[in-house]
Amino acid sequence: MRAAVMRNCQLVVDTIPDPVPGEGEVLVKTLACGICGSDLHALKHAHKMVEMAKETGAPFVLDLTRDVVMGHEFCAEVIDYGPGSSGAVRPGDRVVSMPLLFRGGRMEGVGYSNEAPGGYGELMTLSAALVLLVPNGLSTEHAALTEPMAVGVHAVAKARIEPYDAPLVIGCGPVGLAVIAALKLKGAEPIVAADFSPLRRALAQRMGAHVVLDPAKRPALEAFVEAANMRPAVIFECVGVPGILHQIMHGAPLGARVVVAGVCMEDDVIKPMLGINKELAVQFVLGYTPEEFASTLQAIAEGQIDVAPLVTGRVGVDGVPGAFDTLAKPDQHCKILVEPWRA
Amino acid sequence: MRAAVMRNCQLVVDTIPDPVPGEGEVLVKTLACGICGSDLHALKHAHKMVEMAKETGAPFVLDLTRDVVMGHEFCAEVIDYGPGSSGAVRPGDRVVSMPLLFRGGRMEGVGYSNEAPGGYGELMTLSAALVLLVPNGLSTEHAALTEPMAVGVHAVAKARIEPYDAPLVIGCGPVGLAVIAALKLKGAEPIVAADFSPLRRALAQRMGAHVVLDPAKRPALEAFVEAANMRPAVIFECVGVPGILHQIMHGAPLGARVVVAGVCMEDDVIKPMLGINKELAVQFVLGYTPEEFASTLQAIAEGQIDVAPLVTGRVGVDGVPGAFDTLAKPDQHCKILVEPWRA
Repeated sequence: MRAAVMRNCQLVVDTIPDPVPGEGEVLVKTLACGICGSDLHALKHAHKMVEMAKETGAPFVLDLTRDVVMGHEFCAEVIDYGPGSSGAVRPGDRVVSMPLLFRGGRMEGVGYSNEAPGGYGELMTLSAALVLLVPNGLSTEHAALTEPMAVGVHAVAKARIEPYDAPLVIGCGPVGLAVIAALKLKGAEPIVAADFSPLRRALAQRMGAHVVLDPAKRPALEAFVEAANMRPAVIFECVGVPGILHQIMHGAPLGARVVVAGVCMEDDVIKPMLGINKELAVQFVLGYTPEEFASTLQAIAEGQIDVAPLVTGRVGVDGVPGAFDTLAKPDQHCKILVEPWRA
Repeated sequence: MRAAVMRNCQLVVDTIPDPVPGEGEVLVKTLACGICGSDLHALKHAHKMVEMAKETGAPFVLDLTRDVVMGHEFCAEVIDYGPGSSGAVRPGDRVVSMPLLFRGGRMEGVGYSNEAPGGYGELMTLSAALVLLVPNGLSTEHAALTEPMAVGVHAVAKARIEPYDAPLVIGCGPVGLAVIAALKLKGAEPIVAADFSPLRRALAQRMGAHVVLDPAKRPALEAFVEAANMRPAVIFECVGVPGILHQIMHGAPLGARVVVAGVCMEDDVIKPMLGINKELAVQFVLGYTPEEFASTLQAIAEGQIDVAPLVTGRVGVDGVPGAFDTLAKPDQHCKILVEPWRA
């Protein structure tokens, strides 16, 4: 199959062997797969990521001497089965799945594994037990956004939002936008969001933010604390660079809950006294549960989460390296979909 | 009155003006006042503490050019009233109080204020609305431990301990021992505690720890994770020096809740990826609520918290500077009480 392959820490397009479905697996054709910021980071800091994964007990550890096909935000079409797979889905069915593959008693991360190629290639193998049928009437492109939206649903669930909480979303990239969508789904109001980029602030409003802040004009936390008017603050860190957590702890009001959804791979410096004097709570979050993934698909299908504004570009396999370059600049795109069937 | 005074960042014993009770205040004679590790820290790093207090929005900011009488863990005897004070307590009554004084529309920290001298002097003024009668039969010395024990009760309350949670207490100084006592009060079992000091490990056992670990023999988190057997881990950081939070995040099991009760006044470095990959929650805690303070007094009075093992020394006002020196070495004492009436 044709695929955009991470090889020697470079992204190259090549023809590689087709994946073969094992026991309990389905073979699928990738219809659409979003490019995730984590993939950009993984490509740029591959060795560091592997080292960090080993150190931090991350679920997946890559062998960088072998090919990796990334891509974990996908919608696909079933084309074949491995032995012993259930008949719950049939060839021609459109499916999404949590990007996990159970094989040989191990769990592989689809798109972050040497064994389980992701959606930047024409074919994938998925665990039959995990695939979910895409409801009729839901477009393939929108279904492919189930995974990144589920990240937001999970972050908001871990925040245990109460009716009068005041949420602030710092950073309106795909993670922040997913958090905004999930807050809207919960009925939180007003949803306050901050980003330096005008494009991202506009997207934040389309996804449900009631108030958008430009931190270049006034520190976001200062404006937020004033607007929150002493209601319990829940601050979502969706940036993921060193220093943001300190900024949040510095500006947060008493008793704020901070949800760290941004993925900061470097060391970070905090002042514990800020946390102590304000009795802050910091909840780090990752991924989603199977139930959250399924309910996110449903919310998209029913129009409760409108993902249409997020898709800003489409490329074939050959366009993946260029799309990675484009996405490195934050103010041009939100989500670019890889459609490997595209010429 | 005679008092141990922080003056020019030194502890000196001197005769200073008696405090005068204002409106809604009672004048009390200090019967016993525990020396707190925070006071040692405040003396040693006074300027830094003031700077940090300003930066972090701490409730109390000292003027170091003026005298400060520290001491916020006290039991006292009422000797007089200010104008308009309620008759809820009468001269001769023994009382404890949260170390707060409401005066002139401001809140002063008793023992951390230029206006509200603490228990290292013969006399204090307290807010009549905050004083609690010491139940008959409860010794003055034990009542004086209400404040430090309330710190543990609060930390455990913020941890929202559930029946099958597995608690680990890192550091068995007064804060860690208070947490152990509060965990015992909640019926947590087994309570695991770790400290390098044999004296502190012995005290941890007397306060209710079922298992004590010597980190010099084996990393405490490693031993704890094995013992917890996948039950939800709740880890209390009661050390308060840079690096401990990282150690805990590194060794913590998936989904652990970390309660930061140790007071680290310096910058600290963490690896956010550790928190993300394990979905850790970090709750910083400070102080206690009025209800927690009152219930702690009751628990001590009813013998549910046995504070007797904690008192390891007694000094008069003249002995305070020497006691500060002694307490700087962790393996000799736990709690030294200042008894200003002592010759």
